[in-house]
Amino acid sequence: MSQMEIRSITKKFGDMTALDNISLKLEENKIYGLLGRNGAGKTTLLNLITNRIFPTDGEILVDGENVIENERVLSKIYFMTENNYYPENMTVKQAFKWSSEFYPDFDSEYAADLCEKFSLNIKQKIKSLSTGYTSIFKMILALACNVPFVLLDEPVLGLDANHRDLFYKELLINYSEKPKTIVISTHLIEEAADIIEDVIIIKSGKLIVKEPVENVLSQGYAITGSVSAVDSFTNDKNVLGADTIGGLKCAYVLGSLIKAGIPDGLEVTKPDLQKLFIHLTNR
Amino acid sequence: MSQMEIRSITKKFGDMTALDNISLKLEENKIYGLLGRNGAGKTTLLNLITNRIFPTDGEILVDGENVIENERVLSKIYFMTENNYYPENMTVKQAFKWSSEFYPDFDSEYAADLCEKFSLNIKQKIKSLSTGYTSIFKMILALACNVPFVLLDEPVLGLDANHRDLFYKELLINYSEKPKTIVISTHLIEEAADIIEDVIIIKSGKLIVKEPVENVLSQGYAITGSVSAVDSFTNDKNVLGADTIGGLKCAYVLGSLIKAGIPDGLEVTKPDLQKLFIHLTNR
Repeated sequence: MSQMEIRSITKKFGDMTALDNISLKLEENKIYGLLGRNGAGKTTLLNLITNRIFPTDGEILVDGENVIENERVLSKIYFMTENNYYPENMTVKQAFKWSSEFYPDFDSEYAADLCEKFSLNIKQKIKSLSTGYTSIFKMILALACNVPFVLLDEPVLGLDANHRDLFYKELLINYSEKPKTIVISTHLIEEAADIIEDVIIIKSGKLIVKEPVENVLSQGYAITGSVSAVDSFTNDKNVLGADTIGGLKCAYVLGSLIKAGIPDGLEVTKPDLQKLFIHLTNR
Repeated sequence: MSQMEIRSITKKFGDMTALDNISLKLEENKIYGLLGRNGAGKTTLLNLITNRIFPTDGEILVDGENVIENERVLSKIYFMTENNYYPENMTVKQAFKWSSEFYPDFDSEYAADLCEKFSLNIKQKIKSLSTGYTSIFKMILALACNVPFVLLDEPVLGLDANHRDLFYKELLINYSEKPKTIVISTHLIEEAADIIEDVIIIKSGKLIVKEPVENVLSQGYAITGSVSAVDSFTNDKNVLGADTIGGLKCAYVLGSLIKAGIPDGLEVTKPDLQKLFIHLTNR
């Protein structure tokens, strides 16, 4: 039974409060979406969890033990980060070997299999990889290391559309075959919305949402129908955005819906997580 | 009258042919989308245009002059690249000052205005910026330098959804007030589809598409209606993908449409550029 508990974490950099009294629990075998604007504090939180930096206040416990300078606990967590910690001239293959020393359950065969699927040449030097292939390399390490906690900071950064599709598929296969706790921090919210179970939203260093994705989505709804019918229905409502396809319009509305009041010809559907997010986090 | 001509460009790295006999013209005051899979050769092409690397064969002319070691020609081009060429400890403000020396028409007031809109602190050191804010910093430089050619390599890398929206808006304002030739290389195709005029697609080092976006989109169509009606209509067709909202389905179909054959209740609309791209570039 693996669990992570973040207790009243505050982190200051000089005068600037990057994280302000954040408390949350991450349960075993769940996929979390960690969302927030640029500069909200997401990466700071992930750096604190993995003891790359120290909190100003509060503590982070994994299975009851504090993460600070605790190698045994840290080896239960894999952090796919924007930074590169690999020696300059290391090849992809050498990095896999190196990782398998720190993560004893690293699955080399699976990693090689993923390299093939993503057309990553294992003989290439890490420093010579493009932005997209650097993400692919790190993401394969994250999927293959077989630890209870996998933290993914912008896993699809620079990935083309085909590779992003493939990544989401492989992540779900990995999760169903070897369940683990996964935290995905991403700005491509709509693409990730289908695989996230709980949403964590940080705004200017404060935790503002920690709820199942359904609860967040229930704060609004989408309504579809002919352009004129949708416009007349949403006239007095708080519309977050709209898409039109042909003569049809789909408007995203904030607020709860009184079902009795839906005119004929209009259809109510799930709202768009990205549009709700933009609303919740706008400055 | 500014024009760029890429003539039979081939670039090899050792045994590997990164670009294979590419020829294309970039016209004045047009927005191009440079699309391709990870590793297709997009960044190599941009590096060749800006003389960061040398072609194995062929030449690139700007207003009739070869770009190679030609400072006068190169000062007409701004390249927003993934790499950082700024001294380690430089602040955003200092970088603006530095840029205005190389680009005499650099608009400092406009740059400061954009910093405010994107909440970028001009006193921050460039190296301390997050991935998202590094993109914002470079994008502001690109918009403010006032040159005839602006090349944007993944301009929205790491930007949150709100900032991506703001970027597309500011880019269009900039383009309408001070027209220029803009090349956007991006993997977030659907978001950029509305601002691109011509699409350039490179596949494994070869130019496979260079056409107005409408021509590319005319290779397919989308059809919307009830799930059952759409399914029965697309049964014998090449479906690239589909979205459903409520009881409605929108399927993306490859091929041309015989208008006479559309059953009642179905509506034909513009297809999705990203889905067509995935189809055109799949290995």
